[in-house]
Amino acid sequence: MNFPLKVGVIGAGAMGADHVRTITTSVPAARVTAVFDPDTDRATAAAAPAQAAVLGAADELIASDQVDAVLIAAPDFTHAALALACLGAGKPVLCEKPLAVTAADALRVVEAEVSGGRRLLQVGFMRRYDPGFVDLRRTVTEGKIGDLRLIHAVHRNAANATNADDTGLITNSMVHELDVIPWLAASEITAIRVESPVQQGFRDPQLATIWLRNGVMASVEVFVNAGYGYDVRCEAVGTLGTVSLAAASPVSSRIAGVEGRVVRSDFVAHFADAYRVELGAWALAALAGTVTGPSAWDGYLAQAAAEAGVASLTSGQVVTVAPGERPSLY
Amino acid sequence: MNFPLKVGVIGAGAMGADHVRTITTSVPAARVTAVFDPDTDRATAAAAPAQAAVLGAADELIASDQVDAVLIAAPDFTHAALALACLGAGKPVLCEKPLAVTAADALRVVEAEVSGGRRLLQVGFMRRYDPGFVDLRRTVTEGKIGDLRLIHAVHRNAANATNADDTGLITNSMVHELDVIPWLAASEITAIRVESPVQQGFRDPQLATIWLRNGVMASVEVFVNAGYGYDVRCEAVGTLGTVSLAAASPVSSRIAGVEGRVVRSDFVAHFADAYRVELGAWALAALAGTVTGPSAWDGYLAQAAAEAGVASLTSGQVVTVAPGERPSLY
Amino acid sequence: MNFPLKVGVIGAGAMGADHVRTITTSVPAARVTAVFDPDTDRATAAAAPAQAAVLGAADELIASDQVDAVLIAAPDFTHAALALACLGAGKPVLCEKPLAVTAADALRVVEAEVSGGRRLLQVGFMRRYDPGFVDLRRTVTEGKIGDLRLIHAVHRNAANATNADDTGLITNSMVHELDVIPWLAASEITAIRVESPVQQGFRDPQLATIWLRNGVMASVEVFVNAGYGYDVRCEAVGTLGTVSLAAASPVSSRIAGVEGRVVRSDFVAHFADAYRVELGAWALAALAGTVTGPSAWDGYLAQAAAEAGVASLTSGQVVTVAPGERPSLY
Amino acid sequence: MNFPLKVGVIGAGAMGADHVRTITTSVPAARVTAVFDPDTDRATAAAAPAQAAVLGAADELIASDQVDAVLIAAPDFTHAALALACLGAGKPVLCEKPLAVTAADALRVVEAEVSGGRRLLQVGFMRRYDPGFVDLRRTVTEGKIGDLRLIHAVHRNAANATNADDTGLITNSMVHELDVIPWLAASEITAIRVESPVQQGFRDPQLATIWLRNGVMASVEVFVNAGYGYDVRCEAVGTLGTVSLAAASPVSSRIAGVEGRVVRSDFVAHFADAYRVELGAWALAALAGTVTGPSAWDGYLAQAAAEAGVASLTSGQVVTVAPGERPSLY
Repeated sequence: MNFPLKVGVIGAGAMGADHVRTITTSVPAARVTAVFDPDTDRATAAAAPAQAAVLGAADELIASDQVDAVLIAAPDFTHAALALACLGAGKPVLCEKPLAVTAADALRVVEAEVSGGRRLLQVGFMRRYDPGFVDLRRTVTEGKIGDLRLIHAVHRNAANATNADDTGLITNSMVHELDVIPWLAASEITAIRVESPVQQGFRDPQLATIWLRNGVMASVEVFVNAGYGYDVRCEAVGTLGTVSLAAASPVSSRIAGVEGRVVRSDFVAHFADAYRVELGAWALAALAGTVTGPSAWDGYLAQAAAEAGVASLTSGQVVTVAPGERPSLY
Repeated sequence: MNFPLKVGVIGAGAMGADHVRTITTSVPAARVTAVFDPDTDRATAAAAPAQAAVLGAADELIASDQVDAVLIAAPDFTHAALALACLGAGKPVLCEKPLAVTAADALRVVEAEVSGGRRLLQVGFMRRYDPGFVDLRRTVTEGKIGDLRLIHAVHRNAANATNADDTGLITNSMVHELDVIPWLAASEITAIRVESPVQQGFRDPQLATIWLRNGVMASVEVFVNAGYGYDVRCEAVGTLGTVSLAAASPVSSRIAGVEGRVVRSDFVAHFADAYRVELGAWALAALAGTVTGPSAWDGYLAQAAAEAGVASLTSGQVVTVAPGERPSLY
Repeated sequence: MNFPLKVGVIGAGAMGADHVRTITTSVPAARVTAVFDPDTDRATAAAAPAQAAVLGAADELIASDQVDAVLIAAPDFTHAALALACLGAGKPVLCEKPLAVTAADALRVVEAEVSGGRRLLQVGFMRRYDPGFVDLRRTVTEGKIGDLRLIHAVHRNAANATNADDTGLITNSMVHELDVIPWLAASEITAIRVESPVQQGFRDPQLATIWLRNGVMASVEVFVNAGYGYDVRCEAVGTLGTVSLAAASPVSSRIAGVEGRVVRSDFVAHFADAYRVELGAWALAALAGTVTGPSAWDGYLAQAAAEAGVASLTSGQVVTVAPGERPSLY
Repeated sequence: MNFPLKVGVIGAGAMGADHVRTITTSVPAARVTAVFDPDTDRATAAAAPAQAAVLGAADELIASDQVDAVLIAAPDFTHAALALACLGAGKPVLCEKPLAVTAADALRVVEAEVSGGRRLLQVGFMRRYDPGFVDLRRTVTEGKIGDLRLIHAVHRNAANATNADDTGLITNSMVHELDVIPWLAASEITAIRVESPVQQGFRDPQLATIWLRNGVMASVEVFVNAGYGYDVRCEAVGTLGTVSLAAASPVSSRIAGVEGRVVRSDFVAHFADAYRVELGAWALAALAGTVTGPSAWDGYLAQAAAEAGVASLTSGQVVTVAPGERPSLY
């Protein structure tokens, strides 16, 4: 493929529009050439910074010879079908999480990619590119905290914006932890339990307990109405020590009796670096005809764990996660 | 009673000896007049800073007219009987945790105190006097974090010194959280579950999930071989915000590429302020013929929750805690 | 002298009253037996927690056989004369800083003590007992930061309460740094320069540059209308690293978009531990007939440096500090 | 000019090579088309990531029709002449600091640009693009700390790499503070004094006191053999509060008794974000035929202040900075 990668973006909501801006301002290896969204005004606005064409349909965009690779930022329920279409067209694709709304659908994407024989799809688990998570994982991997025993994760939003119901906390929010925890622990989730102190109505916050194949356990708090801001924390605990994400604000002030640091209000600002690095790495790999980040299989695993979490929230029981054999492609 | 309070100390191990020193150097309202320990050399050494008498038996000490009040720092299995003897003698007593090695024994102490009709016994849950925990509770109580939903607690030791087996992590270490969490939440524990990533051998670390009557949930990690130092953390999470214990080291250094703060190595140093304030408050109350801190009932509740935790660690199930009706004395 | 030390307190303002409370609640080695203040109501209120006698004159208090040792917390202009009277009576004395309002007067106290042949007077530079400053000095002394080159100090109050004019910033506030910096550096001040960005009216903040005999330099900012709170910072910079006082608040909160820690509002709260340790150490030494803390000579040196600072603020020049030979008593 | 900007880089040392990489990986608005360095091997290595041409001379590069804009990263003594050549060619230029090795030479560049009638030259004071400094300045500008009174800055390197002698600490290192302090205070330096605790040999560390036209004062410490790492700190102090750069490490660990955060080892890593944002902003402005960042006049002012600082270090006196009238172009 010729440098720079010609990227078509499907979905011009907040996430899609932000990806267009990030590629345009910060990813020389790619440029956005086409945008599709059923809402044409939105598509036009998102396309503007890139002077990209606004196309009339997703399949048109996928088929276009002005599109080398596809970025899927459309509504969740469209992900699997769009991903399959991209794989069918043999084009590299970055699919925002979740890969599909059911694990069964995600598995179909996996099978399609496996039958194609090469990796083309990356799932948008951008935390794997966040400088903090990267540092945290390196500290674990280098053995500095000894043998890993526990991971504690916290994931809070100021106010719920994206979760329509209880289960959305798991499938939309916790799904990030369901990917990043196995990645940190270099293992797979085998069981999950999700509980909440709120018994009636919208069950928020939720506490998950997670078991991994290598014996590591993890605790996760998701709280989408935490009031004070957007806050993502993670600590890995080993037999020699621990390592945690640190506060991110670049300045601190002392005003009116308080030494304070700003807590960011949303994930786009918080993970701006992660998105930028993710898109850059994806573009470079796509130019070489492949992808290297979180795979369709990872997307399927996270979805399978999320479904088990939903079942657990309903039943009150520990639910095992049995994703089947990892295909040799991954 | 005449100022200062004449205190007899039973048990001259590390904790007892430290209490003698703290009273002698920092608690004008009390002085240690008598010490008993079966190991007379140890008793003599502990008594020295206070120039206290070394007595030949615990009951002699309790009965002595040179002893207004008793501090029990003897081995755990002796606590209940000694506490009962002090109550029988009508003398105020500060009993190191645990109040008893079984909830049933603790309940007998409660019943004895209730039948006496006035509070004489305080359990040595010193965290309730720690400046950090006091500030944390005040922040919650003043409503600054909104309605409390969750408490996260961590309790780590560098290396196991005091727990003979798995269950000691709960009855010896986690028992502090089993007292402090209800105190922070102003409610009672109704159920507990304890699990560990370690399935065989010494089950350390352990993760507890705790349910309180008012709907608050808590997570607790106890890890007595955490390697790096002594570390106690706590975060209360509400609907408007959160409040956490902060790092305690009074200086930070930048040496050899690291900005570092010292982590304390043991709980005596970490909670030195808490012990001092606890002993001072106890002495003042005892001079007035009563006690005001954590009660025998609190000691019984913590023990009942710990027993439920032990049962849960064994069975793998959630175990309910049903302590019965709170006597009107408390 | 008999245990506990019988202390007479001269001056029942905020500082004197606080010392009575601290001794009464936290210093078993001493008890306050007598209080004098020209304002009898104030004396009575201050004496109450200790059930101390209220006496009619300072010299009566100093002479009283119910007073083993004297604590001077009266207005600054009375310090030197009262200190001389205590020395004349052969009684240990803790004199709040400053030792005198002029270096010449301070030197007279030194000479009186020297002619008596033994140390009886300690100046109330309580920072030398603050856990943070003690840790900081130990880190320097143990060589962990290599050879000391620089000290940076900051001293801020929310709003000016105690300085009547420009020079009070030096003689009342900065005088603490003028004592603690030589103590940290184990050397003596040889020159000082004081400047302010404010050229007219009340010259606040002020910046001092300080030279020490061993080649170390120090910078000091004093700002008594800093608005946000009481804040004392200090960093020692060596050839291998640096060490700084760390934030002191025991909890941190996350509320309304800010991760915050409380900044204390005044020095009494900030240095409560330091005052307690100071008074305890002074009482123990006084019981043995001497004192061990900051000496009359230290008080004279700080005063001489402060006078040089005042001269510098006026002249705009570096002013040398030439205190003369250190008597062998110190 | 056509998108993307075609950039020629003069100088293929560490800084130049890093700029080529940054533009290539992170600045879509530009691409490096040409590199010149007298050391052809070095030029070839630096050009590789961009597949840029290696040219035989600086003037050839400046004149090339494959070069829209020039980035000067050659040795300091060449800056002024190269900048003049770029201005003569009417091409936008980003000149690494210092703009010239003397203020007189820097002024010649200013005069050349003024005579050309439009801004074409930006000086590489990258701190103005660092997220921390940007946040700090915004906090000041928005009035959150009240009226600015003082700025404290610290600038440390682990070990001296780039300063041949004493004066290099000012002209090479402190020059960053000499630019950023006026930028933060929105004023100009009118006088400077530089001193060192080291009287003989290499005078490191150095302490500067700086006066600004609007009455603000600043203190600066530069220490190029600080041992422990690369450390840049800054605090702005106002009448309502203060704001400081915060620690930058994204994780913290607790290992072996220390809670630690990594201190970066060099400025390239520390300011990677700043360089990326700087180059992106410069490229966008250059495409529009101008520049917007720190100007030739800013470069001249910093150089004039640095020369005054050198004179002060030699003479021991305060040296005034009188740069003359600001041309209306700036």
